[in-house]
Amino acid sequence: MSGNTFGKLFAVTNFGESHGPAIGCVIDGCPPGLELSEADIQPDLDRRKPGTSRHVTQRQEDDRVEILSGVYEGKTTGTALCLLIRNTDQRSKDYSEIGQKFRPGHADYTYFVKYGVRDWRGSGRASARETANRVAAGAIARKVVPNMRVRGALVQIGPHKIDRANWRWDEVDNNPFFCPDPKAVDVWAKFLDEVRKAGSSTGAVIEVVADGVPPGLGAPVYGKLDQDIASGLMSINAVKGVEIGAGFAAAAMSGQESADEMRNRPAGWPEFKSNNAGGILGGISTGQPIVARFAVKPTSSILTPRETVDKKGKNTEVSVKGRHDPCVGIRAVPIGEAMLAIVLADHYLRHRAQTGKG
Amino acid sequence: MSGNTFGKLFAVTNFGESHGPAIGCVIDGCPPGLELSEADIQPDLDRRKPGTSRHVTQRQEDDRVEILSGVYEGKTTGTALCLLIRNTDQRSKDYSEIGQKFRPGHADYTYFVKYGVRDWRGSGRASARETANRVAAGAIARKVVPNMRVRGALVQIGPHKIDRANWRWDEVDNNPFFCPDPKAVDVWAKFLDEVRKAGSSTGAVIEVVADGVPPGLGAPVYGKLDQDIASGLMSINAVKGVEIGAGFAAAAMSGQESADEMRNRPAGWPEFKSNNAGGILGGISTGQPIVARFAVKPTSSILTPRETVDKKGKNTEVSVKGRHDPCVGIRAVPIGEAMLAIVLADHYLRHRAQTGKG
Amino acid sequence: MSGNTFGKLFAVTNFGESHGPAIGCVIDGCPPGLELSEADIQPDLDRRKPGTSRHVTQRQEDDRVEILSGVYEGKTTGTALCLLIRNTDQRSKDYSEIGQKFRPGHADYTYFVKYGVRDWRGSGRASARETANRVAAGAIARKVVPNMRVRGALVQIGPHKIDRANWRWDEVDNNPFFCPDPKAVDVWAKFLDEVRKAGSSTGAVIEVVADGVPPGLGAPVYGKLDQDIASGLMSINAVKGVEIGAGFAAAAMSGQESADEMRNRPAGWPEFKSNNAGGILGGISTGQPIVARFAVKPTSSILTPRETVDKKGKNTEVSVKGRHDPCVGIRAVPIGEAMLAIVLADHYLRHRAQTGKG
Amino acid sequence: MSGNTFGKLFAVTNFGESHGPAIGCVIDGCPPGLELSEADIQPDLDRRKPGTSRHVTQRQEDDRVEILSGVYEGKTTGTALCLLIRNTDQRSKDYSEIGQKFRPGHADYTYFVKYGVRDWRGSGRASARETANRVAAGAIARKVVPNMRVRGALVQIGPHKIDRANWRWDEVDNNPFFCPDPKAVDVWAKFLDEVRKAGSSTGAVIEVVADGVPPGLGAPVYGKLDQDIASGLMSINAVKGVEIGAGFAAAAMSGQESADEMRNRPAGWPEFKSNNAGGILGGISTGQPIVARFAVKPTSSILTPRETVDKKGKNTEVSVKGRHDPCVGIRAVPIGEAMLAIVLADHYLRHRAQTGKG
Repeated sequence: MSGNTFGKLFAVTNFGESHGPAIGCVIDGCPPGLELSEADIQPDLDRRKPGTSRHVTQRQEDDRVEILSGVYEGKTTGTALCLLIRNTDQRSKDYSEIGQKFRPGHADYTYFVKYGVRDWRGSGRASARETANRVAAGAIARKVVPNMRVRGALVQIGPHKIDRANWRWDEVDNNPFFCPDPKAVDVWAKFLDEVRKAGSSTGAVIEVVADGVPPGLGAPVYGKLDQDIASGLMSINAVKGVEIGAGFAAAAMSGQESADEMRNRPAGWPEFKSNNAGGILGGISTGQPIVARFAVKPTSSILTPRETVDKKGKNTEVSVKGRHDPCVGIRAVPIGEAMLAIVLADHYLRHRAQTGKG
Repeated sequence: MSGNTFGKLFAVTNFGESHGPAIGCVIDGCPPGLELSEADIQPDLDRRKPGTSRHVTQRQEDDRVEILSGVYEGKTTGTALCLLIRNTDQRSKDYSEIGQKFRPGHADYTYFVKYGVRDWRGSGRASARETANRVAAGAIARKVVPNMRVRGALVQIGPHKIDRANWRWDEVDNNPFFCPDPKAVDVWAKFLDEVRKAGSSTGAVIEVVADGVPPGLGAPVYGKLDQDIASGLMSINAVKGVEIGAGFAAAAMSGQESADEMRNRPAGWPEFKSNNAGGILGGISTGQPIVARFAVKPTSSILTPRETVDKKGKNTEVSVKGRHDPCVGIRAVPIGEAMLAIVLADHYLRHRAQTGKG
Repeated sequence: MSGNTFGKLFAVTNFGESHGPAIGCVIDGCPPGLELSEADIQPDLDRRKPGTSRHVTQRQEDDRVEILSGVYEGKTTGTALCLLIRNTDQRSKDYSEIGQKFRPGHADYTYFVKYGVRDWRGSGRASARETANRVAAGAIARKVVPNMRVRGALVQIGPHKIDRANWRWDEVDNNPFFCPDPKAVDVWAKFLDEVRKAGSSTGAVIEVVADGVPPGLGAPVYGKLDQDIASGLMSINAVKGVEIGAGFAAAAMSGQESADEMRNRPAGWPEFKSNNAGGILGGISTGQPIVARFAVKPTSSILTPRETVDKKGKNTEVSVKGRHDPCVGIRAVPIGEAMLAIVLADHYLRHRAQTGKG
Repeated sequence: MSGNTFGKLFAVTNFGESHGPAIGCVIDGCPPGLELSEADIQPDLDRRKPGTSRHVTQRQEDDRVEILSGVYEGKTTGTALCLLIRNTDQRSKDYSEIGQKFRPGHADYTYFVKYGVRDWRGSGRASARETANRVAAGAIARKVVPNMRVRGALVQIGPHKIDRANWRWDEVDNNPFFCPDPKAVDVWAKFLDEVRKAGSSTGAVIEVVADGVPPGLGAPVYGKLDQDIASGLMSINAVKGVEIGAGFAAAAMSGQESADEMRNRPAGWPEFKSNNAGGILGGISTGQPIVARFAVKPTSSILTPRETVDKKGKNTEVSVKGRHDPCVGIRAVPIGEAMLAIVLADHYLRHRAQTGKG
C-alpha cells in the first residue's frame, strides 16, 4: 500500500538500487497453475538490456533473472513470486564527480531534499535500472489474460515522427529503435549519432498496444482502466505525458469525428468503425485494441556543461561522463509494454472478482 | 481499496448516480482542526455548476452540499467526513429514446457489457454528475497543504489555443470559459455557438497549476507525484491525455533545452531557470509550481445522428436530445483543480508520515 | 485505504457520529445483479436496534435505512452503494456533565488526546451507533456468497456461560439475549436486573457461525481468513478478544486432540470428525462451518461514581446518567454476524479473482 | 494490497517457501536516516532460530539475513528495503511420505483445495519458515517508534500456566522457553519431554508487551490499533486466539472492575490505576503499555498416526517423521513481538501523517 507496490490484485512490489547488490520484485496475487520459468522472462529482459547497440548505454548488465519463490514444478503456485536480478557492473567511479553536484533535470536533487540522503552511485533508487523489474513482472502479467498480446513501438525520436501509413509490426524487431516504419530507421540513426556527438540527448514517444483484451475491464469512477494505464506509464522514469487513443488530438475534434461508430457483427461483440477511444469508454475496455502513448524527456545526464548548484547550495556547473543513453525512450518500449500488461492483468482479476466473468 | 476510492491517506470515496436521490462522497484521513463549513465548499461547486452560461448544459441543479459528519463546532474532527448533494432536476424523459441504443463514444455500452445493467437515466453512474463530488472533496483538500493555491484555466477549445504570452490569471473568472487569454474569449464564443448550432460538440485542453507546494512530495517508484496526478486527471470523464510540465513537447527537446538549470538563491531553496519539469523530478516535487494539462474529448451526446447498435445488437442510428454541454471541457476546469488538490493533500500526508516533515 | 474502510474487494466505508444528522456507509465492489431493497436490510437493523427490551438502552432510534445509490430496478448495478440512516433521537442534554470529564475505560479520553477535539455528544464517532452501518452492510454481504448462512448467539453474560449441550439455534430468537440455551435465559435475566439496579454493567461472549462457506477462501500469509475475521471482530466497540474454533482452549490440547481427522465422503469434499479448527486451516477455509467467538467488556458508562480526571487534568469523579446498555454484548450479536459476513464476502471475491472459482 | 503485504505505511511484503532457494521480505515506507545493518536484525533471528534446544525442531538453518537494498552508508535511505534469507537445510526426503496424504489440522489440505498445487516439501508456503521474515522486519520496526520497547514471554504451555506473581522479565532469556516465571521452567521442561516422547505436541499462550508507546496511535473505526494487532497476531501460523489487556476475562467483569480509573500526574499524561484495557481505548493507545496475548495450537505434524485422506480422497493414516517442534508456541515469542512492533510502527506513521504529531 506504500509507494513501491503497483496494482491491487496483481501487485508488483519493486526494490533495489542501481549499484547495490541486486534489484528485484515480488509479485503477489498471480493465479496458480501458469507455466513459468526464467526462460519466459529472459527474452523481455534482453529486449530492454543495455549495450545492445551504439544507440544505448554501454553499461554491461547480464540481467539474469532468478525466480526465488512461487513456482513449483514449472507452474505458479498462487503464492508470492520473487524475482531477483543481481547487479554485476557497478562501476561507481564514473559518478565520483557528481556526488557533490545536482544534475539539472535529475531526481538526485529531489531525493536529497526529501530524504536527506545522497546515494549518488548511479542515482541509487532513482536510476532507471529498476525498470528491469517492471519488464520481468510484465512478462508474467502477459500470461494472466488469456489470448492477450501486448506490443510496443517507438513512434517519435526528437522531432522525427514515423509515418503511420508505413506501420509494420514485423519491422519493430529489425532495427535498434523498435521502429515500425522502415523508412524512419536511417533518419533516426543519423539523428541519434549527431545527438551523441554533440554531447546531448533527445526525447521520444512510445506507443503500446494490447490486442485480445476482453470488454468489461476497468470500473467507475476511480478504478478506470485508462486511469491505471496513465498511472503505470507515468511512473516510468522520465515520462512527461500519457495519452489514450486519439489523446490530445481529441481536443481538436468534433463530436462526430471523435465518437467511434458501432456496427453489428454477425457473431460476437459489435465492431467499431474507428478507435479514437483507444479501446476504452468510461474507463472500461470496449473489446477493441487498447492503445496508449507516452512521451519520454531527454535524459538529464549529458556531456554538455550545465548550470547548477552543489550540495551546499553554491553555484557551479556539471557535466556527466557516465555511460548514458542518448535517448532513454528507446529502451522504454519493453518497459511500457510491461506496465500495460501489468495493468491489464490486474484489471482482469478485478473484473473476474466482481462479475465472475473472464 | 476498490474502485470508488481515490487516495491513500486523504482518501475520497465517491458514490451516486445522475438520476438517483443523491450523490456524495466520504473523505477519510482529513487532519483534525481545519476550519470547515458548507460555505467553504459551495463556491467551488458553483464554479462547476451547470446552467451558468449558454455554453454549458441547461440542466438546473442547485448542487447544495450538506456535511453529514466529521465536523464539530466548525472544525474537522479527524473522523470521516460525508458530503451529500441531493439531485433535484431528474428529468428522465429526455433520455427515453436512448434507453435501447448505445451512443457511440459513450460509456453506456461498456457499463452494459461489464455489469449487464442498463441504467440509462442520464447515464447513471457514468454521468459526469459525480464530478460534483470531486469538486467538493477538492475544496477540503485545498485546506490540507498550508499555503498551497490551486488554479486552473482552459488553454484550448477545439483547434483554438490561447496565446500563452497573453496569460492573465485574473482574467480567468471574467469569462464563461475559464480562459486566461482575453483575446481568445470572443473567438471561443463564436466557435462554440457554431458547434452548438451544428448539433455537434468539441474537445478542449485544461491546465492546472499548484503554487506553494513544498519540495519533497511524492516517492519512488510507484508512489510518484506525477503518476498520481496522471491517475487523478485521467479518471475524470472524457479525459484522453495528461501531461506534466513540457509534456509531449519534451519528446522533441534536446537535453540542454529540457533540463531546468538551477541557481543559488540567497535564502531558501535554489531557484530554477525554467520549469519544463512541471515542478516534479523523479516523481518528487521540486518546490516549483506543479503544472499539469489534460485533454478532454468532445461529448458523445450530440444531436447529429450516428450509426450504432441497440441492446439486441441490431444496427440503428442514434441522436441525443438531452441538455448536454457542447464542450464538457469548460466545466472540467474546477474538476481538474480539485483532483490536483486531492493528490497533493494525499502526498503531503504521505510525506509527513515517512519523514516527519511538513 | 485509510481507517474508515474495511475490506479489499467488498469494501465498506463507514461514516457518521452518534449525534450528527446521519450515519451511513458506502459499499464498493458489490457484484451486480443481486436483488436488493431496503426490506432486505431492515430486519437485521431491527435485531440490533436499541429499545427492544428492558435489558438494552432505551434510546429510541428508528434506524430506517435509505439506499441512495447502486441499485436500479431492484438490483445492484455493480456501482457504489450508499446506505444512509438518519439520527432521530439526539438527546444531547443527557451528556452535559461528562463534557468536561473523561469516563474511565471510555474512548473519549483517547480521541481527545489524538485529535484535540472533544465531541462529547453521545461520544461522537466513538459511539457504538456506527455499528448500525456494519449491520446494514452485513445484510448485503450475506447475499454475495451463494448458499452461505451466518448466525450468532450469546454464549456468556458476566460469569454465566451457556451449557453447550443445550444449544438450539431456534431458541436464539425467542429471548431478548440471542441465547441458544433455554435454561440460561432466566439466569441471565435475573443477573442483568441485578447489574442494572447496582448501577453497573457486565461483559459477554458472542459466538458467530457461518455455514455453507466453500473451501479455499483466504490466502497466505497476510491474507488469512481468520486474520481478517479477527480484524473485523476486534474492530467492534468494546471487544477485547477473538478466537477461532477451539481458540484459547487449543493451548491446553495435545496434537491428537486438536487436529481434526478427515474421512472420505462418498460424494464431495472429505468430512472432518471434529471442528477445532473452526473451519480454517492455514488461513484458508476447509468447507466446515466457520466458528468465531469474541469477548465484549462491560460498558464504561455506569451510574456508579468512578475516579477520573477532567479535560484540564484535575482529579474528579464521574458517573454517567445517559441511556446505556448494561450489557452491550447483547446487541453485539447481529454486529458480529455482519462483520463475519463482510469478511467472507470479501474473501469470496478475492478467491474468485485469483483462481476463477466460486 | 494483495495477501502477502502487511501494513499500510510501514508495509512488509513477505515471500518464499520452506524448501525453495530463499525467503525474504520487502519493507516499504521505512523512514530515512535510521541506523541499520544486518547486525541489528540478526539477534532477533537467532532468538527464533530452530535448533537452539532439545525442545524445538532440530532443523539447522543459519538464518543469515542479507540487506539487498534501502540502506546506504549504514542508514536507511527511505526507499524499499529487501531482506533476503537463503535456505540452507532443505532436506526434502523427510517429507516424501506425506506428499500424497494430508495431515489433519495442517494447511496442506486447504492449499491444495485452493490452488490445486501440492508443494509438499516442508509445507512450502504454509511452513512457519516464513516467520523468519516477520522477525527480520520486526527488528526494523522496533527502530521506527522512538523509545519503544517490545518484549514477549510464554505464559502457558499445554495446561501449565505461569504464576504471574513470579513474573521477572530478566528471567525470560535464562531458559529455553522465554518463560518469565523461574518456577515454571522445570515443570515445562518435564512436560515437554513427555510430550515429545509420546510422539505428540502441545499448545501455548504468548504475551507480548510494548512499553513507551505514545498515546494517540490507532484510529476509528476500522483503523483501530487493537484490530491491527489482532490481525497481525492471528496471521501467525497456528494461532487460534488473540486478546488485548484483560481479554476474554473482561466478559466476566463488572463495569467497575473493568474500567481503569485515572488520576492526575504532576507532569505529563494522567496515570491509570490498572491496565485492563491493555493500553488501548476505542482503538487508540492510551500511553499505557500495550498488552496482547495469543494462543497457539499444537503442531499437526506428530509421530502418532492419525486418520486422514490422501490426494485422491481415499481413507488412510498419516504420521509425520520430520523435524518438528513439539511446541511451536515457544519460537512464536519473537514472532509475536515482531508483529506487534510492525503494527505499532505502521500506526506511528499513520498518526504522524494525520496529526503531525510524533
